[in-house]
Amino acid sequence: MNTTENKKFAIGIDIGGTSTKFGIVDPEGNIIDQDRIPTASEKPVNIFVDELYKKLYPMIESVGGNSAIAGIGMGAPNGNVYTGNIEYAANLHWKGIVPIAHLISEKFDLKTTLTNDANAAAVGEMMYGAAKGMKHFITITLGTGVGSGIVIDGKMVVGHDGFAGELGHTIVRYDGRLHKSTGSRGCLEAYASATGVRQTAIEFLAEKPNAPSLLRNFKEEEITSQTVYECAVQGDAIAKEIFDFTGEILGEALANFIMFSSPQAIILFGGLTKAGSFIMNPTKEAMEKNLYQVFKNKVQLVFSNLKESDAAILGASALVWE
Amino acid sequence: MNTTENKKFAIGIDIGGTSTKFGIVDPEGNIIDQDRIPTASEKPVNIFVDELYKKLYPMIESVGGNSAIAGIGMGAPNGNVYTGNIEYAANLHWKGIVPIAHLISEKFDLKTTLTNDANAAAVGEMMYGAAKGMKHFITITLGTGVGSGIVIDGKMVVGHDGFAGELGHTIVRYDGRLHKSTGSRGCLEAYASATGVRQTAIEFLAEKPNAPSLLRNFKEEEITSQTVYECAVQGDAIAKEIFDFTGEILGEALANFIMFSSPQAIILFGGLTKAGSFIMNPTKEAMEKNLYQVFKNKVQLVFSNLKESDAAILGASALVWE
Repeated sequence: MNTTENKKFAIGIDIGGTSTKFGIVDPEGNIIDQDRIPTASEKPVNIFVDELYKKLYPMIESVGGNSAIAGIGMGAPNGNVYTGNIEYAANLHWKGIVPIAHLISEKFDLKTTLTNDANAAAVGEMMYGAAKGMKHFITITLGTGVGSGIVIDGKMVVGHDGFAGELGHTIVRYDGRLHKSTGSRGCLEAYASATGVRQTAIEFLAEKPNAPSLLRNFKEEEITSQTVYECAVQGDAIAKEIFDFTGEILGEALANFIMFSSPQAIILFGGLTKAGSFIMNPTKEAMEKNLYQVFKNKVQLVFSNLKESDAAILGASALVWE
Repeated sequence: MNTTENKKFAIGIDIGGTSTKFGIVDPEGNIIDQDRIPTASEKPVNIFVDELYKKLYPMIESVGGNSAIAGIGMGAPNGNVYTGNIEYAANLHWKGIVPIAHLISEKFDLKTTLTNDANAAAVGEMMYGAAKGMKHFITITLGTGVGSGIVIDGKMVVGHDGFAGELGHTIVRYDGRLHKSTGSRGCLEAYASATGVRQTAIEFLAEKPNAPSLLRNFKEEEITSQTVYECAVQGDAIAKEIFDFTGEILGEALANFIMFSSPQAIILFGGLTKAGSFIMNPTKEAMEKNLYQVFKNKVQLVFSNLKESDAAILGASALVWE
């Protein structure tokens, strides 16, 4: 790869519960090199930083070394943009407060900016994705959990302490399903995540023991949102009901979010969006049904058009240009 | 009253469902003159504008005429800051879209700014009230309805179309109580308004026909949030339960709002706040209970310290200085 003296690249790092993706991005939003390592957060964080350096530094050298890099942008669960720390992230084993931006910045000798992983994804959508040109939108990640990034007037909403936009933890069903890692009841994440869809499937199959379903061909531990989708594609009634139920709750929650910030669009991404119209249709219907008159038929509900692994890297790297 | 050549005053007008309050405010936030007229929105809007002019113009003359006035700020239900129109306000009889800012501006020959009444109140809190010096807060009006104003980074959140912040219409109880004017079910306004408290009282008395209560001394049509408060003060168990129930729902909703924008404070005002600790305590408890860990014990929940009629005029007038 040629080094380009005047061209500054940005590095994007997305720290996930399982793996960490990283890449070098040019100013047009092309990922020119990328890789991943296991996050392995059960080990001390300095081991993670060393492993990352071992893989990422050769990539930096290949584009001309540090002088060709404008900075590092990082997304991580509970990443705080004000402090540069990961604070009490439920799905990472590092305990308490981890000064990750400081550690990375010292190791690489590059300016490093951290934010919440969902916020990073929203920045990626705004710069390169479905929200290009929009100043008011919300992104919702429907993955293992439910994340969110909120943009108002072209700016990420981070709140007074950096923690705004935890929409997966908003309560949608009073005294509803237990959310195991937080102990709360009836939050959106307990229903509209891959984990939630699996749970709904298990509950529906148990509640209707005599209803035939292709899902009964799987052992309970094999049921995932993916198997539910595959059964729905084959016309399975219970599988479709599972998505209808999920979409009804998700749509109602989205209506509430719209009545808060009145966005132009809501952009959905993450594993659950692979279910396509099975999840989109009931979600849209419930969203419109629950909106106050002035908001009806105004808000675009769309899937992200970015490749998932790309979106995470692009979003993180975009922090460098902000 | 002396005219002061260099001193510019602002006019604040608050259009409510029943009456319209207006006043002249000096730059320090002192209301130096004020009055009110019936809104009488069953008559054409130009009659309203004429009535307002008749009362307000002499007040303007007494401070030196138009040259002493920096402008007019107005708050109204469904007032749109972008268009200057009142659009489809449910509790006004004027139908459809009313170009009120244009009409007032023409009549008075003064620059006129309109916003949502709840947003105007939030601006008043930020300039003169409990939110002085804060950049991230939410105001919730607990009156006949439930209104809200959201401030993020020191700016009112109005969204892409000017309608953001309709938190009274967010759904808090799936398939819950019917909201008569919108037809929605389970929205916050159906429970946490004066109307909602009255409805809860009627339901609780009917559900527990054998439970003694001072509220049974009133005819159904006499029961208001005020009578419930008076009975609670006298130790009435059902009256207290009514506020506990209201506070539980309100607190849960507030938790959801906090997880959206992570504010420093939530400021409550409106008639229902006269219930003091009867409404504050259960609200605070439910709010903290439903918050995701990173938000707990961080957000101030307080009552407004502005006199209600003053707050409306001050908030509207503050738009002139924005």
